[in-house]
Amino acid sequence: MPVLDFWLEFGSTYSYPAAMRIAPIAASAGVSVRWRPFVLGAIFHQQGWPADSPFNWQPAKGRYMWRDLERLCGALGLPFCRPDPFPQSSLLAARVALIGLDEGWGEEFARAVYSAEFAEGRQIGDPMVLASLLDVLGVAAEPILLRAQSQEIKQRLRAETDEAQRLGIFGAPSFVTESGELFWGNDRLEQALEWAKR
Amino acid sequence: MPVLDFWLEFGSTYSYPAAMRIAPIAASAGVSVRWRPFVLGAIFHQQGWPADSPFNWQPAKGRYMWRDLERLCGALGLPFCRPDPFPQSSLLAARVALIGLDEGWGEEFARAVYSAEFAEGRQIGDPMVLASLLDVLGVAAEPILLRAQSQEIKQRLRAETDEAQRLGIFGAPSFVTESGELFWGNDRLEQALEWAKR
Repeated sequence: MPVLDFWLEFGSTYSYPAAMRIAPIAASAGVSVRWRPFVLGAIFHQQGWPADSPFNWQPAKGRYMWRDLERLCGALGLPFCRPDPFPQSSLLAARVALIGLDEGWGEEFARAVYSAEFAEGRQIGDPMVLASLLDVLGVAAEPILLRAQSQEIKQRLRAETDEAQRLGIFGAPSFVTESGELFWGNDRLEQALEWAKR
Repeated sequence: MPVLDFWLEFGSTYSYPAAMRIAPIAASAGVSVRWRPFVLGAIFHQQGWPADSPFNWQPAKGRYMWRDLERLCGALGLPFCRPDPFPQSSLLAARVALIGLDEGWGEEFARAVYSAEFAEGRQIGDPMVLASLLDVLGVAAEPILLRAQSQEIKQRLRAETDEAQRLGIFGAPSFVTESGELFWGNDRLEQALEWAKR
């Protein structure tokens, strides 16, 4: 079965609809999806950009994005609530997701994080919020949150981010086929799946 | 019939497929399109950005855009050739198009400019190139090119650009419905037409 890498950032707005859509669409396309959390802010930082989201320091683009995302979620029937503050701190969620993807509960956890952030307005940088999401999945939160702060996991997330940059990724969500074709944006998901099957 | 404003910039890469696609799609959607050339560089300038295209000073995004545009044109059956230099100087073409839109040959001229630039690799900042495009349309080039440099036309293009900025436009192509809904990007054309009919 062809494989498509789904590069996601938990602070990224358009990663929310992509994360909620990808599993059924990929299944019916016959494509296997590998979820790969990374840290987009680190890539922005290396470009010399401000530490804030481009949607904050480019106000016209930011205003548009919120309206566009609201329309998009409306059309998809996805609940939507603007995170406050934006962007949320996404580092801990990404580290937990890395562990979960090894252990088989990573995708469900990732969707739960996006729902908490963009449907329920919860603070995904708060370890207590992540613990409650893990509880719902039946995963013992304390050892996971402890391990998420280990050097091993921190280093793995850094290595994934380096790999994202090496692949030419500059935004999220991004999709990369086995042949190295890069697609950027929720609105390229269908095209990326088609390409993955070539 | 509902009206959709199509804000275009002749230097903009994704405006090429949008310009080549919009007429038949809008006709079958029952939406009337108003072509509105503007100067995107002036909006970038007011944001304090470099004078160059963001696709040049954001190299990863630029590399992606060229590949994405090539794939997109391939899927649409549109010939594609990367302009050199990029971006092309688009001011004169925009001024000529403003005159043409008054006189009934503006849309055809706009498509001819995009083809010259993105299919044939011609220099659209060169008055001789624009004159040859006008010749093909049966329009006497000399008086038009002269009038395009008048204060009246220069001022009208500045006013259109101010209006684009007032509408929240920060990129091209953009589409604005009569109710003021803004859509950005070739890939939002279908959604903008749907919205225009509401």
